[in-house]
Amino acid sequence: MAAPQPPVSTARSSETGVSPIEPDVRFREIRYLCARKLHLLPMEILQKQYAELLAGQQFREEDFDPAVLARHIAALSSSVLLAGCAVSIFDLHRCEHAYESEFHRALFSDPQQEYAGVRIHPEDLVQVARNGVAGMRHVFLRRNPNMDVRRFKLIREYRALVHGVYKRVTEEFQILETDRAGNVWLVLSIVNLSANQQPPYKVASQLIDTRTGDSFSPLDDFFDREEILTPREREVLHRIAQGRPSKEIADELHISIHTVNTHRQRILAKLGVDNSLEAVKYAWILGILDA
Amino acid sequence: MAAPQPPVSTARSSETGVSPIEPDVRFREIRYLCARKLHLLPMEILQKQYAELLAGQQFREEDFDPAVLARHIAALSSSVLLAGCAVSIFDLHRCEHAYESEFHRALFSDPQQEYAGVRIHPEDLVQVARNGVAGMRHVFLRRNPNMDVRRFKLIREYRALVHGVYKRVTEEFQILETDRAGNVWLVLSIVNLSANQQPPYKVASQLIDTRTGDSFSPLDDFFDREEILTPREREVLHRIAQGRPSKEIADELHISIHTVNTHRQRILAKLGVDNSLEAVKYAWILGILDA
Repeated sequence: MAAPQPPVSTARSSETGVSPIEPDVRFREIRYLCARKLHLLPMEILQKQYAELLAGQQFREEDFDPAVLARHIAALSSSVLLAGCAVSIFDLHRCEHAYESEFHRALFSDPQQEYAGVRIHPEDLVQVARNGVAGMRHVFLRRNPNMDVRRFKLIREYRALVHGVYKRVTEEFQILETDRAGNVWLVLSIVNLSANQQPPYKVASQLIDTRTGDSFSPLDDFFDREEILTPREREVLHRIAQGRPSKEIADELHISIHTVNTHRQRILAKLGVDNSLEAVKYAWILGILDA
Repeated sequence: MAAPQPPVSTARSSETGVSPIEPDVRFREIRYLCARKLHLLPMEILQKQYAELLAGQQFREEDFDPAVLARHIAALSSSVLLAGCAVSIFDLHRCEHAYESEFHRALFSDPQQEYAGVRIHPEDLVQVARNGVAGMRHVFLRRNPNMDVRRFKLIREYRALVHGVYKRVTEEFQILETDRAGNVWLVLSIVNLSANQQPPYKVASQLIDTRTGDSFSPLDDFFDREEILTPREREVLHRIAQGRPSKEIADELHISIHTVNTHRQRILAKLGVDNSLEAVKYAWILGILDA
């Protein structure tokens, strides 16, 4: 999401008079109906998933240092380089925007709101939320101390309201800081007007490994799945990553080479990549493989 | 241009044996043939124009402070925010790249070259050079002490070689520092992979006023003209900018209201904008109007 939103109210139980255990059951029904059958806009699902991601973090005061945030804000405010960039920081601990640059205000200012949030075009909103949740989901669910999540950047292009007119914007979205326990704490967004203002518009996104320059199209299709690869596919990919030939993998897993190659093809298709090397790189970004 | 290149050799006179005064004449012929009639790739013209822009600057050692550059490099090197951005600084005084970030190297590294310059797709090169020269030209030719040229940013999208494969990249291109005499000294380029990697590709660009968020498509069509507007059109636009009604402008210039409105329509068409307010804003950026 361009600017993470506070979790939506999920106070369904009081409205319907059912017990507190039921919202999840109802939610699954809705998700099924929306995403699988009716193809309705699944914003409700996405907001729920986003709220779940946030709720899954256990912040403790002793695990983070407010001075770090202050330093980032000081650096951002004084940077000549970023004077012409729309920069904002969202604090997931306090669930509020901790910083918004002058240019951010200039581009997206709204006299009605104290925080001049980016207002995304209604037609683009679901896709933007989808790839935002897809990207964050993998980071949140799979984060571990060995993985520097700040290494990855989600770059997106969508339409947003700029001075009352929808223009195409480009957003770089990344985790700026985790706390000492590894919780995702500060999220950075840099929004610029896009070079391309000509129709037809479409939402586009790339997940980028800033250490290597590798880039991948985020797996929006898998945004509501717990796992992208089956356990077997993960076993196979793990061995591919170790550089083991198909014959060896087949022997170890007591399957045929043909089956190994079928797994390999399915892995490439699911990850949307062309070859095993790309699959290993992307799976590593997604947290499917250990570093 | 993604990374300003050293001026091309224009040592035509020695090759052809003509006097040193003649290259310009020949150059005009070539320009005419290329740009107007044959629609050949005008890279030669663009490089000449670029070289002329650079040569028009009169650097004096006492007008600039090398410590400024050192501070920028130190700030860039230590910035967490820019760790995942491909940043470079070109020094127009020394005509060399003064800085290239780690990510810049990661994305565009070329073992053949000491400086890992951005290699633009051959099909995109002319358009990228065109809007680069168009943008710089107006800044260089019209700069004055009252105009903070760092306020404007050129954002472009084109294809460049990333790890041996052409990918679409987005470039933010801006003037970082002028010297005390107002010469354009340090030029900053920030290149990122584009969110959009799907065909069809096309070169796109926007000139952005980072103080207001206004954006315009650079006037590539006018890149080889001395002036975009005629003196009369400038007179009319100057009065429009002052908020004067057509009747008053007509009286002052001793022309009919119809003629004023015809001028107004031509101005809008030439600047590629929809209304007078936009025309005034863009003309101001281009240096046609005083602030």
